[in-house]
Amino acid sequence: MLLVADNLHIINPVVQKALETLDPGPIQEITERCEAAGAGAIDINTGPLSRNPEEKMTFMVETVQSVTNLPILIDTANPKAMEAGLQANKNISIINGFSLEPQKLEKILPLAKKYKSDIIGYLLYPDSRVPNDSSERCNLAIQILQAIQDIGLDESHLIIDPIIVPLSWQNGNQQAKEILTFIHNLPDLFGFQVKTIAGLSNLTSGLISGHGNMKKKLLVERTYLPMLASAGLDMVLFNIFHNQTVEAAKACVPLISPRIFSWAEL
Amino acid sequence: MLLVADNLHIINPVVQKALETLDPGPIQEITERCEAAGAGAIDINTGPLSRNPEEKMTFMVETVQSVTNLPILIDTANPKAMEAGLQANKNISIINGFSLEPQKLEKILPLAKKYKSDIIGYLLYPDSRVPNDSSERCNLAIQILQAIQDIGLDESHLIIDPIIVPLSWQNGNQQAKEILTFIHNLPDLFGFQVKTIAGLSNLTSGLISGHGNMKKKLLVERTYLPMLASAGLDMVLFNIFHNQTVEAAKACVPLISPRIFSWAEL
Repeated sequence: MLLVADNLHIINPVVQKALETLDPGPIQEITERCEAAGAGAIDINTGPLSRNPEEKMTFMVETVQSVTNLPILIDTANPKAMEAGLQANKNISIINGFSLEPQKLEKILPLAKKYKSDIIGYLLYPDSRVPNDSSERCNLAIQILQAIQDIGLDESHLIIDPIIVPLSWQNGNQQAKEILTFIHNLPDLFGFQVKTIAGLSNLTSGLISGHGNMKKKLLVERTYLPMLASAGLDMVLFNIFHNQTVEAAKACVPLISPRIFSWAEL
Repeated sequence: MLLVADNLHIINPVVQKALETLDPGPIQEITERCEAAGAGAIDINTGPLSRNPEEKMTFMVETVQSVTNLPILIDTANPKAMEAGLQANKNISIINGFSLEPQKLEKILPLAKKYKSDIIGYLLYPDSRVPNDSSERCNLAIQILQAIQDIGLDESHLIIDPIIVPLSWQNGNQQAKEILTFIHNLPDLFGFQVKTIAGLSNLTSGLISGHGNMKKKLLVERTYLPMLASAGLDMVLFNIFHNQTVEAAKACVPLISPRIFSWAEL
């Protein structure tokens, strides 16, 4: 299971300010800390970048790759920013991502073909509604796969994101179970071993801050993560500075690996 | 998921001495600590009790029920001790357990019918060999169910134990995965919702003691437990004094429950 750091996110005021002023220092520092904490890939989430999208994404990608060789997930809904990031990146790129939304099908998906890049497909309806259960996710996944095939991109480039929803939603824990079922059944549905990714922090979003709640949030994260891992999840996106979640993720690997278990791996 | 304390075990020198001298104090103290730590049931593992089996098991059961109303798992291969325990127990009894071994089929299984008790069926071959994969476990489970039906015991009394093996075995982590597959598939195999139990500490047995290894042991325990829970495990037997494992087990419950999730449950 590949651990993807979601720490370079525009909602972090440090990231926002560095991006605004094109100051590489704070971005480099966060990136280095992510790699040291165990990240196997770095997600750059700039938001939509309404002003100077190309310049800003180029700055972010160049800054990140100045300190790491890890794969970079370029995470924006802005096609101009996305293409600038893909052009600037000399590491492996993953487009994060597209859905059945017409704008994304028309403007984002073709970039995966053009740059021969992996691309994450979100299981969302064209109007961005979240599916209600495993069966709806299967239907959306087939449409996402069809879109990949229609554009002539090799299926191996597709990474499916089943869209974790907050537990605080009325059907939150039911959705958490449905996602496990979906991931478990996906290889049979597609008939090949498609890659999957999930954003773990969605699960606990909406929980009000405070020390006691942070403890609960981390407990739930590191409890749900082994469930995802044993269902077959390939990549998990989360705050890599949550040490105990990293520890849990690393402990999953030798348990679910086809290799002979060794206590030395822990 | 019901948490079953395996702390009253004859390999604990305190338990051994208390049983030898019929001294209730240490047994009561451990039992009270187990309940306070979150146990939903207490396993009494006396070993085979070659001398005075009836007297000793009666002492153990009476001592435990003098301080708790929790269900008691009577855990011995000695049929005389088992029957004495079942007679003495005024709490709910669970026989732990029987297998396809002829001695257990003839001497232990009929006690479940006689005392209308739940009984754990171990998925082991008649010569006590452990099955190699999920498919072998399915075959054994069907034979165990057949034995229950043959004796005229209602199927609802059966609790299946798939037998966790140490990760240190050459195929240890493969077995860990096969057990998840087996538990996941069991309701479809039987056509009804049969109960399941697993002994978590088996997973890490054979790991040499020492502080660093205890940390690894606990990490592996609390990582594998959510995998078992999401596969559908009903009862887990472990050292209830491992606080972090208890915490993980309790966090699994609202995630896999059909009830609406509430952060207040954590």
